[in-house]
Amino acid sequence: MKATIERATLLKSLSHVQSVVERRNTIPILSNVLIEARDDGSIRLMATDLDLQVDESVPANVSTPGATTVSAHTLFDIVRKLPDGSQVELNAAEGKMQLTAGRARFNLSTLPRDDFPVIAEGDLPTRFELPAATLRQIIDKTRFAISTEETRYYLMGIFLHVADDQLKAAATDGHRLARVTVAKPDGADGMPDVIVPRKCVAELRKLLEELEGTVEVSLSPTKIRFGLGSAVLTSKLIDGTFPDYNRVIPTANDKLLKLDPKTFAQGVDRVSTIASEKTRAVKMNVDRDKVTLSVTSPEAGTATEELAADYGADGLEIGFNARYLLDILSEIDGDTVEVHLADAAAPTLLREKDNNSALYVLMPMRV
Amino acid sequence: MKATIERATLLKSLSHVQSVVERRNTIPILSNVLIEARDDGSIRLMATDLDLQVDESVPANVSTPGATTVSAHTLFDIVRKLPDGSQVELNAAEGKMQLTAGRARFNLSTLPRDDFPVIAEGDLPTRFELPAATLRQIIDKTRFAISTEETRYYLMGIFLHVADDQLKAAATDGHRLARVTVAKPDGADGMPDVIVPRKCVAELRKLLEELEGTVEVSLSPTKIRFGLGSAVLTSKLIDGTFPDYNRVIPTANDKLLKLDPKTFAQGVDRVSTIASEKTRAVKMNVDRDKVTLSVTSPEAGTATEELAADYGADGLEIGFNARYLLDILSEIDGDTVEVHLADAAAPTLLREKDNNSALYVLMPMRV
Repeated sequence: MKATIERATLLKSLSHVQSVVERRNTIPILSNVLIEARDDGSIRLMATDLDLQVDESVPANVSTPGATTVSAHTLFDIVRKLPDGSQVELNAAEGKMQLTAGRARFNLSTLPRDDFPVIAEGDLPTRFELPAATLRQIIDKTRFAISTEETRYYLMGIFLHVADDQLKAAATDGHRLARVTVAKPDGADGMPDVIVPRKCVAELRKLLEELEGTVEVSLSPTKIRFGLGSAVLTSKLIDGTFPDYNRVIPTANDKLLKLDPKTFAQGVDRVSTIASEKTRAVKMNVDRDKVTLSVTSPEAGTATEELAADYGADGLEIGFNARYLLDILSEIDGDTVEVHLADAAAPTLLREKDNNSALYVLMPMRV
Repeated sequence: MKATIERATLLKSLSHVQSVVERRNTIPILSNVLIEARDDGSIRLMATDLDLQVDESVPANVSTPGATTVSAHTLFDIVRKLPDGSQVELNAAEGKMQLTAGRARFNLSTLPRDDFPVIAEGDLPTRFELPAATLRQIIDKTRFAISTEETRYYLMGIFLHVADDQLKAAATDGHRLARVTVAKPDGADGMPDVIVPRKCVAELRKLLEELEGTVEVSLSPTKIRFGLGSAVLTSKLIDGTFPDYNRVIPTANDKLLKLDPKTFAQGVDRVSTIASEKTRAVKMNVDRDKVTLSVTSPEAGTATEELAADYGADGLEIGFNARYLLDILSEIDGDTVEVHLADAAAPTLLREKDNNSALYVLMPMRV
């Protein structure tokens, strides 16, 4: 294998693939990136953790096609430290890959390309396209609610499914739920319900950062594949059943509180400064056109803040985890958040005014 | 106590004092900041860890003089989260301090001001002034060499002493030494040799960041005091004997290598990418007008880089810890670093060309 590639091109692609590679691996080849120089004038870079794989092709000057694998993090660090604008020559032979740029020369250990594991995609019968911006929205407005509890592995991802002629994405950790709905894209009919794992969501979000245009989504009940321009992300799906989350979305919460999400968030952030690390509970006293936030801590003291609001129903006192409330408020874009309340023990529904695509359910805390 | 103060003024001062306060304290009052509203229209803020104390006065509108103590980190976090431009009202009575700003109100637990420990400065007979810029230089060019080894507590600071009609600052961890000399300031005659502890150096450097003008230094054999405008930093000194470091500064290294410190540092940084975390050894092959840097790692492979240099003596091969070499090179400001070599086993002297105020000694590694 022999090829020359611009440092900036190689660096960008390596930054995508190396982030899939775990820092510690018991199987040595999982620390490596597959580099394949092809006679169509491209280099293919590929990394995997056996559950998630990223595969990207970038233009290069290939004189001898071939392939090898080298340590992904080491290669990334080397290329990162090369001078801007340099040309990188890659030359693999006899169990080594030589990298030359300017007056610097590296001779890196390799492992055989044939040992590099590739995720077998199998048949991916469902195929549809989504605008990159829509996929970004779906992720941003749900990912914070993904569970981190290994015992409930089926909550450790975003649930994607088709219902009511819409594509729905939901995540919950049992304390809060986030759901986004978008118009059902062509081709999503008959799509199986799938749970996309947290790490796939994180890597997908990084790749979406710079992407315009559309993303090609292909999936089966066990695998999902995202086509993102020059990069392809393939992931195994979580093998489990996501609970019927519709049962927890309240439909009869008749007390409507409206307020500015930014002022609300700043107030919650301030009063929760003195909350104990464990509970992080903030109390909301809701009364005619005002909300009083308060926190009491046995060690630190008390904090209160009054907020102007739009509220006409009976007064109510309810408590929430400040962190969970702030997570939701930071995803409300408009100038009004609607808080649909029932009573101090009932799930509360939050949504952006005039925006039906995203909704949030938050369980109260006893305060 | 009752006073009103601008949020920005309070925040800036709190950011200075709270950083002295350790996150975990077995003595509760050491978590607190002393707040003293004085009838001269100022608030004094003070924090301590019993070895180091910072004391700052800021203008405020004082209606009732008095003093109390509250949690430094909590107060800092609250003030940080208050809206920019707000007026903060402080009101201490009956074991609580009320803080009001806009529609937010905090009632904070306090501890009695009389329990707050103050470092007794005692007599500080040596007094001199140093420009803030000079003190910044002294710190920046020596602090990286301060030891972190608790067993050699007398190396865990910067050694300050007067010799040869100069004020000298030195730090060493046994592997490298950094020394800066400046003209002896008026008043430094007869100054005792002192070791300024690492934490004092770090806090002093933060306070110097924004300071113009001069710093008043007062000291005795056991305490040092830095007057920095509105802030005063007082520290205990390390009770130990700094070794006679002059013995390790080589005087007969007759092989002179000159090169550009930036190119040198970039080369060392690149080849050391593949060095094992433990040794971080980089080999320098010095020959007529060139240096070849190389690293060999049993796992990763090899790296070499050739640098143009000015060298006329006999060829030489010598190894250094890459991290230590980079620490020194990052403090060389000019476009030439002079490397005074003897042989592969001897301490090497590095200094900036035409700059006699700073010098560095680096012990070689066997490679």
